[in-house]
Amino acid sequence: MFGGTGSRFPKRTMAMARRSHPVLAGLGPIPLDRTADRTAVMPLYQQLYKALRQAILDGRMKPGARMPATRIAAQEWAVSRNTVVTAYDLLLTEGYVTGRVGAGTYVATALPDPPPIGSADGMADGAANWTGRARGIGLSRRGAALATPVHPCAPARRPFSLGVPDPEVFPFALWSKLLAQPWRVGGRSLAVSADPLGYPPLRAAIADYLRAMRAVRCEPEQVVILSGAQQALALLAQLLLDPGDPVWMEEPGWPGTRSALAGAGARIVPVPVDGEGIDVAEGQRRAPDARMALVTPSHQFPLGATMSLRRRAALLDWAVARDAWIVEDDYDSEFRYAGPPLAALQGLDEAGRVLYIGSFSKVMFPTLRLGYLVVPPDLVDAVRAGRRHFDGGTSVVPQAALHRFIAEEHFASHLRAMRALYAERRDALLDALRQHVEPITRIDGGEAGLHIVAHLDGRHRDVEVASRAARLGLSSPPLSSYYAEPTAANGLVLGFAAHPAEALAAAVRGLAGVLAGAGRTDAVLPDRRRRTDDG
Amino acid sequence: MFGGTGSRFPKRTMAMARRSHPVLAGLGPIPLDRTADRTAVMPLYQQLYKALRQAILDGRMKPGARMPATRIAAQEWAVSRNTVVTAYDLLLTEGYVTGRVGAGTYVATALPDPPPIGSADGMADGAANWTGRARGIGLSRRGAALATPVHPCAPARRPFSLGVPDPEVFPFALWSKLLAQPWRVGGRSLAVSADPLGYPPLRAAIADYLRAMRAVRCEPEQVVILSGAQQALALLAQLLLDPGDPVWMEEPGWPGTRSALAGAGARIVPVPVDGEGIDVAEGQRRAPDARMALVTPSHQFPLGATMSLRRRAALLDWAVARDAWIVEDDYDSEFRYAGPPLAALQGLDEAGRVLYIGSFSKVMFPTLRLGYLVVPPDLVDAVRAGRRHFDGGTSVVPQAALHRFIAEEHFASHLRAMRALYAERRDALLDALRQHVEPITRIDGGEAGLHIVAHLDGRHRDVEVASRAARLGLSSPPLSSYYAEPTAANGLVLGFAAHPAEALAAAVRGLAGVLAGAGRTDAVLPDRRRRTDDG
Repeated sequence: MFGGTGSRFPKRTMAMARRSHPVLAGLGPIPLDRTADRTAVMPLYQQLYKALRQAILDGRMKPGARMPATRIAAQEWAVSRNTVVTAYDLLLTEGYVTGRVGAGTYVATALPDPPPIGSADGMADGAANWTGRARGIGLSRRGAALATPVHPCAPARRPFSLGVPDPEVFPFALWSKLLAQPWRVGGRSLAVSADPLGYPPLRAAIADYLRAMRAVRCEPEQVVILSGAQQALALLAQLLLDPGDPVWMEEPGWPGTRSALAGAGARIVPVPVDGEGIDVAEGQRRAPDARMALVTPSHQFPLGATMSLRRRAALLDWAVARDAWIVEDDYDSEFRYAGPPLAALQGLDEAGRVLYIGSFSKVMFPTLRLGYLVVPPDLVDAVRAGRRHFDGGTSVVPQAALHRFIAEEHFASHLRAMRALYAERRDALLDALRQHVEPITRIDGGEAGLHIVAHLDGRHRDVEVASRAARLGLSSPPLSSYYAEPTAANGLVLGFAAHPAEALAAAVRGLAGVLAGAGRTDAVLPDRRRRTDDG
Repeated sequence: MFGGTGSRFPKRTMAMARRSHPVLAGLGPIPLDRTADRTAVMPLYQQLYKALRQAILDGRMKPGARMPATRIAAQEWAVSRNTVVTAYDLLLTEGYVTGRVGAGTYVATALPDPPPIGSADGMADGAANWTGRARGIGLSRRGAALATPVHPCAPARRPFSLGVPDPEVFPFALWSKLLAQPWRVGGRSLAVSADPLGYPPLRAAIADYLRAMRAVRCEPEQVVILSGAQQALALLAQLLLDPGDPVWMEEPGWPGTRSALAGAGARIVPVPVDGEGIDVAEGQRRAPDARMALVTPSHQFPLGATMSLRRRAALLDWAVARDAWIVEDDYDSEFRYAGPPLAALQGLDEAGRVLYIGSFSKVMFPTLRLGYLVVPPDLVDAVRAGRRHFDGGTSVVPQAALHRFIAEEHFASHLRAMRALYAERRDALLDALRQHVEPITRIDGGEAGLHIVAHLDGRHRDVEVASRAARLGLSSPPLSSYYAEPTAANGLVLGFAAHPAEALAAAVRGLAGVLAGAGRTDAVLPDRRRRTDDG
């Protein structure tokens, strides 16, 4: 996407800038494509941001080094100061640089906790980003790809944080009791031999729950306990895919899924979703021979569609005909606010092609790190052997307590209470958005789950809005970042579970301010947002 | 190793056998190399065992199918009935078949919990073993290799079980209290944001412990908490090795290490160990350009040597010169029965080439599934990103309790008590072996750790002895199974921690019976061990 080789820059300007700012010396010219149609491809600020990020990642810009002041940088790279400010803002938001107004901007000394970034920004060019640094610290090529920042797994709790429940309303006193109980008398039997697939009573309890609530067909033996859904994705990718194998991934989709696939060396084939879920016919056009399709049928991430019955049937037909796998990531459909619970795709599968993934992070809490995988009986032994290989299984300690939590009905009642609470919060968020935020053209996905998608009108760019909102402490990842291919999608993904209604309303007012004041690509930034670290 | 194509078998015999035993129909001829020098390469029973195991694994012998009676089988394969009985015994011991005297032998309906098997039996030919079955159930080639039974991670507690502590003496009442405490008041802060590298107070406590007790050089930030040492091995192999990269592995060595390396596609170069640990000069001859060396310097597994200072220096010099990694697996050296604690190799490393791995399975209990990894500062960010990719981190629940256990000094006092107890048990085991077991020529490795190696004289084969001992409920894996290359090594690896002295003494008497009665390759089996399921 970058054109030219930097020959557009007058030599004198570059030399001058480098003298005054040593960090520029090792950086080399940054080629920027100025001819691109801004509405279709990457705007200048984003090109600059990516080039600087790459320079930081591959060590050309050293940790702790001071970034050139925006005035100098604008001169060096022959762009407007606004472009530099926006690029710096993005780096700041993602933690690649640190700094505050008036005190200069510095390259971060540790790599950031990365925000959700789609393939275009993340995994796809990850290996390239890391090549220099990886060579320096001795990572393998695979390691460099794996170690590329992609997405957050244990997300912080900020207004609009995605998929984070509210820890204020979890019954920790009860939890504390349930943790202690199993060990007081049964410690010896819990302590030694364990099936790496999980604590048998918990596997049985999950099988009961899934049969009753999600129409999943399974016996306890098919249930595998893991350290979260991400481990399930990574394990399946390693066990079922060889490098180069094509796989369908929803476009847009969850970056963790992309990471798991890319880490296994799979060839990711983005398949668009519409109101009926993944476009199976398009998938068959793009890669009929895919080995696997990763889908979120109950509540498409992030757009929120429920996969229609005819799409479910078409997907299953394709998988059976091609001996392909379907991974059903049922990441948040416990939270369904209207109508009966949806049946899982897995329940329609008579051929054993569907692998079903669920998580306890959202009903319980994220640091519990427990999720599950339901596999066809044929695969149980292979998964057990794979678990021995990768980690030997998940600690029995949280499993034993969670088993009690479920068996004593606390899980069901907590889930009921949270469903009611989060429905209120969703309503509060939707009300506040309608009342305060004019540039939102449509809202998707509030029927279930813990987030909505607010689409923005053409006067705003989601990446910039998210970046500015982050400076107010708001987490509102841009919809476009969940796409692997260039997209016209433009919106914000907003979680509503982690905070009470009044906090959400206040956060919406902050967001409205960002959109009113500083949203437009070419708007003049208000003074207080300008960096004042210029020389 | 298998010669011929089955042409040695008269056609009529094969046809007859197949009519009477349908399981033989799908099996095809089993080529056996009858010319081999029995003392150097694989004896007939072992060839037969491996061929049958492969037939079970790749589905040619179906789960639940009845195995041909030993008389028929001996006729079919033109071997003695003793050879068939021994091969069946091995399959039975490892769980590939089930059955009891007089009731027939059946292919197991689930794959076994595998015993420790060295590369010759396990990983090296794993992909081949699984090819057929893998195709049937849809595993990838990599998945087939990963899913091959290799070693136990959460071992059962049987007499002589390896690396298993005694759960009867763990303070579970205290543990139960420590589990509950952190959540009673601090639940909210424990529940949400977490560094995937681990719970910070636990990382700090481990850093303190390692600095004080093992002379490891580290800051808390370098300590990574994982679900056990196996996950550390697998993670490092994935992050630091590309497929085809040569790595040094101790010969003999731990099958879990082999599994982690093979799973990452590494080319495993076995490097012999002697009384000073790994032979660095030989490693340099075999693969000077290896990317990594995996070693157990404090207590070589399984032979027990402590790596000498000059070998440590040579290994570090090689790693620095070649930019190679050294993985120091310090799996059980908390248990050192004489002299001061040994300093870790990591503490000698000034160049940041050593990655140090430890585990809590042996001081605490195996189902805790907590281990740690100490990495050079340069690697911290890459490991964090890798953790996000693979599993997002380990549950905070066991981490918070373990932190209290260490911080309140229970860890140190429990370790002191266990060291004294296990020293007594080791002495009891050694006494009993000396008193009852005449065919033991030498014993290695009792200075530290939780096991010893009892070398056998030439009249006994360790594989057979282990197989027969397993029928008495004893776990005594054969020393030869820890070798990747053909070996003259012949001994039993015996753990002594999991049971009291009197149980160990009784188990030794059982073992002595096995060695006295049924140890020799060509001995006639006593009647009670003969299968009586013949037609």
